[in-house]
This record gives sequence, C-alpha cells and structure tokens, in this order.
Amino acid sequence: MSLKTVNIAIVGTGVVGSSFLEQLLSLKSNYIKYNVVAVLRYDSHLISNDYSSLPITSTNWKSYIEANAVKGALSPAQVIEFLNKDTKAPAILVDNTSNEEWAYSYPKFVNSGISIATPNKKAFSSSLELWEQLFTGNPKDGLVYHEATVGAGLPVVNFLKEIIETGDEVEKIEGIFSGSLSFIFNTYSSEDIEFSEIVAKAKSLGYTEPDPRDDLSGMDVARKVTILARISGLKIESASSFPVNSFIPGNLDKVPTSQEFMEKLPEHDDEIKQLKEEAAKENQVLRFVGAVDVKENKVSVGIQKYSNSHPFASLKGSDNVISIKTKRYTNPVIIQGAGAGAAVTAAGVLSDVVKIAQRL
Amino acid sequence: MSLKTVNIAIVGTGVVGSSFLEQLLSLKSNYIKYNVVAVLRYDSHLISNDYSSLPITSTNWKSYIEANAVKGALSPAQVIEFLNKDTKAPAILVDNTSNEEWAYSYPKFVNSGISIATPNKKAFSSSLELWEQLFTGNPKDGLVYHEATVGAGLPVVNFLKEIIETGDEVEKIEGIFSGSLSFIFNTYSSEDIEFSEIVAKAKSLGYTEPDPRDDLSGMDVARKVTILARISGLKIESASSFPVNSFIPGNLDKVPTSQEFMEKLPEHDDEIKQLKEEAAKENQVLRFVGAVDVKENKVSVGIQKYSNSHPFASLKGSDNVISIKTKRYTNPVIIQGAGAGAAVTAAGVLSDVVKIAQRL
Ligand SMILES: NC(=O)c1ccc[n+]([C@@H]2O[C@H](COP(=O)([O-])OP(=O)(O)OC[C@H]3O[C@@H](n4cnc5c(N)ncnc54)[C@H](OP(=O)(O)O)[C@@H]3O)[C@@H](O)[C@H]2O)c1
Ligand SMILES: NC(=O)c1ccc[n+]([C@@H]2O[C@H](COP(=O)([O-])OP(=O)(O)OC[C@H]3O[C@@H](n4cnc5c(N)ncnc54)[C@H](OP(=O)(O)O)[C@@H]3O)[C@@H](O)[C@H]2O)c1
Repeated sequence: MSLKTVNIAIVGTGVVGSSFLEQLLSLKSNYIKYNVVAVLRYDSHLISNDYSSLPITSTNWKSYIEANAVKGALSPAQVIEFLNKDTKAPAILVDNTSNEEWAYSYPKFVNSGISIATPNKKAFSSSLELWEQLFTGNPKDGLVYHEATVGAGLPVVNFLKEIIETGDEVEKIEGIFSGSLSFIFNTYSSEDIEFSEIVAKAKSLGYTEPDPRDDLSGMDVARKVTILARISGLKIESASSFPVNSFIPGNLDKVPTSQEFMEKLPEHDDEIKQLKEEAAKENQVLRFVGAVDVKENKVSVGIQKYSNSHPFASLKGSDNVISIKTKRYTNPVIIQGAGAGAAVTAAGVLSDVVKIAQRL
Repeated sequence: MSLKTVNIAIVGTGVVGSSFLEQLLSLKSNYIKYNVVAVLRYDSHLISNDYSSLPITSTNWKSYIEANAVKGALSPAQVIEFLNKDTKAPAILVDNTSNEEWAYSYPKFVNSGISIATPNKKAFSSSLELWEQLFTGNPKDGLVYHEATVGAGLPVVNFLKEIIETGDEVEKIEGIFSGSLSFIFNTYSSEDIEFSEIVAKAKSLGYTEPDPRDDLSGMDVARKVTILARISGLKIESASSFPVNSFIPGNLDKVPTSQEFMEKLPEHDDEIKQLKEEAAKENQVLRFVGAVDVKENKVSVGIQKYSNSHPFASLKGSDNVISIKTKRYTNPVIIQGAGAGAAVTAAGVLSDVVKIAQRL
C-alpha cells in the first residue's frame, strides 16, 4: 500500500465537531493523507478550491476558520458537486450536526460514491426507506459508518454489525442509552433527594437538553433503539412506530415553557418517590431503558425495575450500558462507559473515518 | 469499489479453525471474493495450485479435506513462496494454531506483503523485538490483526488500538482474562464447595487445559496482559519479565503428572478456604486478575480481592471482563462476556479477516 489521499468535508464545528477537528488534525498516519477540503457551518463555509489541504492545524483551526470563512451556507447538493469534481481522490462527508436536511441527503452522497461518517442519528432513525437506501450493498456506493449514534465512542454499532456478518443472531438488547437519564436515575436511587431536585441538578450541570423534557420524553432513546433494532434485523418503520413510555409526569408535556415545567415538576415529587420506594422494598431500582426483543419482534422504551445485583443497578455517573444477548453470547455481552462527551464521541467518529479511508 | 479477490491460507482446523472455516464459507459479500487457496494441518496440507478457490463449502469442507489432503506439513517459508507466486491477488494468513514456529515466522509474511489474522497469542507475547517487527508501520508490509488474542470475540484489542490512535491514553487496565479461572473463582465464591472440587469440575467440563496447572500458573493471563500493556505503550520485554503470582499451591508445581497434582490438591483446600473466608468477612471475593498500570509502568498477574458491589464480583460462568481507564474514560469502560469458545473466537478472527480484506 502506498500513501493515498482522501478528501474530507466536515459539517458542524460544535461540541463534537471541534473535538473531531482537533483529533483529526493530530492524527499520524503512514498510509493515508486526510485532506480537509471543506468546513461547513450553519451560516458560513470554507472550501479549498484546488483541493489542497486547508492550511489548518490542531491548534489554529478555530481562528483560521473564523478569519477566512465565507458568509452563507452551502447546500448538500453544492457539496456533492464540489467533492465529485476532484476525480483524483475519494471523499468522506463527516456530518457533526443533528440536522435533518443533511441527514436526508446522505443517499445522494452515497449514490455518487461519497462515504459518510457521522454521530447524527437522524438518517438512521427516520423512515425505514431511508435506512434501506443507505445500506443497499451496492459496491459502487460510498460507505456509511455511524458508530457514535449509539453509546458515542463505545464499541457498539460496528461490533453488532460485525458479529452479525459472521453469522451470529441478536436475540435481545437492553440498555441505558441516555447520559442524562442515566445520571438522573443513578443519583435518584442512591441519594435521598427529590426527583425535581435531581432534574434541576442535571440541567445545571449541562447533562440535559435545554428543556429536560426532551430527555424525559424518551425520544432520543427511541432513536437509538430504532438503530439497534434495525441492525438486528427488525423492520422498524420509524422511531415513533412503537410505544415510548415518556417519563414526563402528569400533563407537564403540555406546559409551554421549560421554565414553567421546572416550576411545576415538584408537584409530582411524591408520586415519583412512591415508585422508587415500592421498587426499593423489593431490592430494586428504577432505570430508564430501551429494549429490543428480536424473537418477539418488539421494541420498547421506558422505566424498568432492576434488582440491586444487576449490572444496570451499579451504573455510575452518566454512563451508558448495553447488554447484548445473541445465539452465541447466551450470557449477554455487556459494554459500559461514557456514552456522551466531546472527546469520546469525536473519537468514535474519527475511528469511522479511519476505517473508511483504509477501505477506499 | 469493484469485486476484489483475496487469497486466504488457513493453518489449523482445530476448535477455532473448524468454526472459522464454517463461518468464512458462509460469509456473504458484494465486494470481496474470499479465495481459500490453502488449508494446512500439523501433518497434512491441501493447496490450490492454480489459485482457484478450493471446492469446499461450509458443510463439506471437513470431509473434502480428509479425502484430499496430502500427507506432510508445509513450512512457513513454503507457504510464503506459494502465496507470493500469485501476483494477481493479495493474501492473508489465518493462523488458528498456538504454534510458535508459525508465530515466529509472521515477520517474514508481513515483510513480503502478506497480512495476518490470528487468535494465537505467541507472536505478540514473546520478545519485544518480534512485536516491534510486526508493527513497524511500513506501508508496504502486510497488516496484522489479532483481536481474538484477548477476550476472544469481545471488542478489546481493536477498540484499544483505535482509541489510542485518536489520541486517548490508557491509564489502567484490569481484567479477568481466563475463562477457566473465571469459572473456578466465580463458582468458588458463590458456592459452598472445596477448591479442589471446583478445579476437578472445571477440568471435567473441558474449561481447563488438560493439566489445570497450565491455567493456575497464570502464564496464559500473563501473555494477554503483555499484549494489552504493549498496546498501551509499555515496553514489556516478555511475558515472563514481570511478577506472575501463580495460584498453584505449595510445591505442587513440582509434582510430575497432572493426575498426581489433582490427587494432592485437596491437601491445600483448607488454606485456600481460609483466604476465601478472610475476604468474605470484609464483604470481598477472590478473583484472578491481570492488571496494567501505565503511570506506574507496572504489570501484574495474580489473586486480588474485590468488594461484592464491584463489577468483577458479579461475573457469571466463565465470562471474561476488562476494565479500561483512560485519559478520556475517567470512569472506566467495562466490557464483559464470553472470552473463549469456538464460535465467538472464530468470529473475532473472521472480523479481522474482513477488515484486512477491505483494506487490501
Ligand atoms: N455532544 C455529545 O456528547 C454527543 C454524543 C453522541 C452523539 N452526538 C451527536 O453529535 C451531533 C453533534 O452534536 P453537538 O453536541 O456537537 O452539537 P452542537 O454543539 O449543537 O453543534 C452542532 C453544529 O452543527 C452545525 N450545524 C447545524 N445545522 C447546520 C446546517 N444546516 N449546516 C451546517 N452546519 C450546521 C452548527 O453550526 P454553527 O456552529 O454555525 O451553529 C454547529 O457547529 C448531534 O447529532 C448529536 O446528537 C453528540
Ligand atoms: N478455543 C478457544 O476458545 C480459544 C479462545 C481464544 C483464543 N484461542 C486460540 O486459538 C488458537 C487455536 O485454538 P484451538 O482451541 O482451536 O486449538 P486446537 O483445537 O488444539 O487446534 C489447533 C490446530 O492447529 C493445528 N496445528 C498445530 N500445530 C501446527 C503446525 N505446526 N502446523 C500446522 N497446523 C498445526 C492442529 O493441527 P491437527 O488438526 O493436524 O492436529 C489443529 O488443527 C490457539 O492459539 C488458542 O490460544 C482459542
């Protein structure tokens, strides 16, 4: 193998995108030249018209982009045209946004031979048709890697795909896939604290979305479970085609603002404490889990009770955990660790980029 | 990408090798033709002189090889010559033995551009010089993948290499890396049974080596820990260059036969029970662990005590578990599951073969 050049276009320089750029620009490789030719943001962009590497380093990229980016967004179609004009090097799109327009444009990238690496769940948890367009197995298509869409940098998505490729069959997956809900329920079960207090604390630590109902609704977990179920072979129509048991109490989902929600949440502390105490009487704790049961063709999201000796009960901080039972792993494989955070998520995306570049 | 052909030479058709052949011959791929051109055993071999696929399938391979294999072994040098003569397709050597001659010949394969996928620990846990020869980073060299050398099919070796490549730094690794010692100590701590009885049971279930001292000595764990330490950046001279606290009691390591060892083991039951009971008084259990402390530049193997709430204490059956603490994963990543067995080990090897083939 001799040195090969791979063009990289990066969309999004937020929490994950910043860390990704830093790590990519520090990467050492004897085989591959990672040629960053485009950095795109919400309302600005920077491209290298002659496909030479943008003159950015792991330390100066931020200021360089601030100083040199051009106002205005580029559309996915424009980026495809730009990348395809360079016939000398294959290209990878790294989508570090949670944007739907970009996600829905992946098939166009893939069909024109451009590969994708992304932590953005949208494309993989929307319509089944989109999922199938992305994984047709057409050898001319670009490759699609999305390790960081579940469990951030933990080895979950690629591991699952690999064991299935070798002939294993998933029977059951169960896991805690939300860092914020992990933190909330881990702390709630081990400390003497009101539910509204721990939600407020999680919010103030930046663990939740600006409106904590976006976590408590379970929709983010539903997206991750959709991805895992589809990898396992289930035909899930969308992330809203199965029951999601939201943990937003009463009718606080109807309250207009996040602030009002936080003010009214304490009114429900007692009813939630009762759940906790009932579980504790049976030596159990509450956990917010997503589950895939392949045999039963069933996917579910919501509160479950686990005995104190179960691996989910001893979870710490905001860690994720996933338990994977297969035809071969009759005792489930358990993978546990940070499932969010800039550096570990970016590392998951970068490892995907490296794998794609090695294959191109 | 268009269909490419990769030649595969397989050494060893034992427990792992048989399962590997079955899985490889069932693999579906739109991109790659896995062309099995050689199957080698201890004293026989079968090769395809014109480099067309041997006419074997996932169901007939065993009988076909029995009927058609030629008496006599081929040496590594002969296999290199054979593979290199076909200039149209790159080649992968799959070494499913625990043989040292094959292991020590890997650099010759790699230098002549042939890649390696193997569950054989020997090459990676012997001299540091050999390790360094295998991972020179020369782009002309064959690739070397060895996921199944630690934790069988669990995502350990490649995951560690990937996070380090993205800039993470390992601080501490700790784990239970022996299926037989896992079974022995898990059962010993949860049941009222003598140590000699549980060793006899593990032996009769086929969990231990024919001579259980080969497990209790800790040498197999020392080899795995050597591999993990080297991946983490430590310069470990060999698997015998650090203290390994064997769990063979008294001077039973000097007893000539395995049978005599099993007969004399009950004489030590009381002293081992005392260890167990002392631990139990502090709500702890005994586990046989391997550990790497990068900061302290220290590697160790032997018995440790863990509190009942520690993930290592709740391990079941013969599962392995590994805890990886890094600069980014300050709460350790924990990976747990079967660390031995024909199908999961073969799947680990096959995933490596797929990764190599995709890169070639
Ligand atoms: N943060 C984590 O721990 C984590 C973990 C796992 C997965 N993820 C996933 O990673 C992705 C990124 O998360 P994040 O935390 O980095 O988000 P973030 O900090 O909000 O960053 C989003 C970035 O996307 C850019 N962007 C949004 N819409 C765009 C558009 N239409 N065109 C171009 N750029 C656009 C934004 O540009 P401007 O800078 O111009 O606003 C911003 O740079 C999400 O899909 C998230 O679900 C995150
Ligand atoms: N079994 C597991 O669960 C497990 C898990 C992780 C890693 N591993 C590793 O996987 C490897 C294979 O283990 P296994 O359990 O499959 O062993 P096994 O059943 O003893 O099989 C060994 C095979 O290697 C062949 N062989 C030995 N020396 C040879 C030589 N000089 N030339 C050609 N062939 C030779 C033998 O040939 P014959 O058939 O002619 O005797 C046999 O087919 C070992 O390195 C082991 O440590 C095993």
